[in-house]
Amino acid sequence: MTPKLFPLVSADVALFSIGDGCLQVLLAQRGREPQKGFWALPGSVLNPDLDHSLEATARRALREKLSLDVPHLEQVKTFDGATRDPRGWSLSVLYCALLPRDQVQAVAVSRVEKVRWADADDFGDLAFDHAQLLQVARCALRERVKRHALPLHLLPHKFTLTQIQRVCEMVLRTGRQDDVQLDKGAFRRRFAHASDFVAVEGEFETGAQRPAQLYRIAAGFRF
Amino acid sequence: MTPKLFPLVSADVALFSIGDGCLQVLLAQRGREPQKGFWALPGSVLNPDLDHSLEATARRALREKLSLDVPHLEQVKTFDGATRDPRGWSLSVLYCALLPRDQVQAVAVSRVEKVRWADADDFGDLAFDHAQLLQVARCALRERVKRHALPLHLLPHKFTLTQIQRVCEMVLRTGRQDDVQLDKGAFRRRFAHASDFVAVEGEFETGAQRPAQLYRIAAGFRF
Repeated sequence: MTPKLFPLVSADVALFSIGDGCLQVLLAQRGREPQKGFWALPGSVLNPDLDHSLEATARRALREKLSLDVPHLEQVKTFDGATRDPRGWSLSVLYCALLPRDQVQAVAVSRVEKVRWADADDFGDLAFDHAQLLQVARCALRERVKRHALPLHLLPHKFTLTQIQRVCEMVLRTGRQDDVQLDKGAFRRRFAHASDFVAVEGEFETGAQRPAQLYRIAAGFRF
Repeated sequence: MTPKLFPLVSADVALFSIGDGCLQVLLAQRGREPQKGFWALPGSVLNPDLDHSLEATARRALREKLSLDVPHLEQVKTFDGATRDPRGWSLSVLYCALLPRDQVQAVAVSRVEKVRWADADDFGDLAFDHAQLLQVARCALRERVKRHALPLHLLPHKFTLTQIQRVCEMVLRTGRQDDVQLDKGAFRRRFAHASDFVAVEGEFETGAQRPAQLYRIAAGFRF
């Protein structure tokens, strides 16, 4: 039998996706005390019998609560202290995951928890210190894209260069009213030789514009 | 009375300084089992009665073991899992600190632990997974300086622009044999308007070269 955990150790996940034309984050409503009814980042308390690592705890939380597997979890930061949880000294390792739009449906049909997508720049009050956790994850994501990392896991399975640019713009904005517009030419020159994505041969998106080459994530890409 | 900790929660510190013309890291020899006699990063197990946060645990470890206060601790990453410590499921939050050369003496006289400075790019075997922790901290420090953060806390109380450049070169190298030489003109142009350090009015370093303006860290600088 596992002894009672002390301090309380958890893994929480800031799960981002694109919806309603903006960067969104998944929130789950707490089903029990403390702070029952509050919205929070999905997560779970470490179960040492089940979890060989805290990343495994995070993956188990997503699987059990949301029937969800994510391609890549990134550790963001650890939040800890004597007063952040009314149950006592606690510690939460925060992870970030990017979810392709195609998988949103999988989350919507979850019957285990009440979940909703919130605007990542306007999410209201959250349980515990989760508003702070989410802000730190949001900021870390923005900083990575500022340093030219491409958040390709936010994109559908096949995507155009214009879609990459739009998603980067959504991630780079610093608030709901912030309208970031990257220069198309500079953006394309910067990623002309990017090895993070590859063309899907012979596949194009057709519409009002001229046909646009479709791309997919390259093997080995993580972020 | 504090209940027995489970999982085992610790804070460990990668404490960097400049010595012998290279970036060095402070190692402490373990005085008790497990892995007694092995070199390790200084650190301590969380004491919930004493520590309001894990950063406080890290500061207490440096104070108690090394009679040392550091200006700024930076959280690097959390390492966790069922097998990294023979005592069972454990978790260590790794912090990084930069120590001005002036304070090295304070560490050298510590009577509590056997400590030594090791080359940060050639430190030998360490206890537990501490070699991995140290590599991650070393790499994070290099990446920050690559992104033009200045590791000013590695410098003495007053320093010249040439000293800043030399320290950046030491941090940027990727191994003992790697000889990084930054272009002096480009380096100075980049930091011409830096607000991280300020001139010490009327103070110059004099020697074989022409007198060089002395600078100090600006108020509010953290990294």
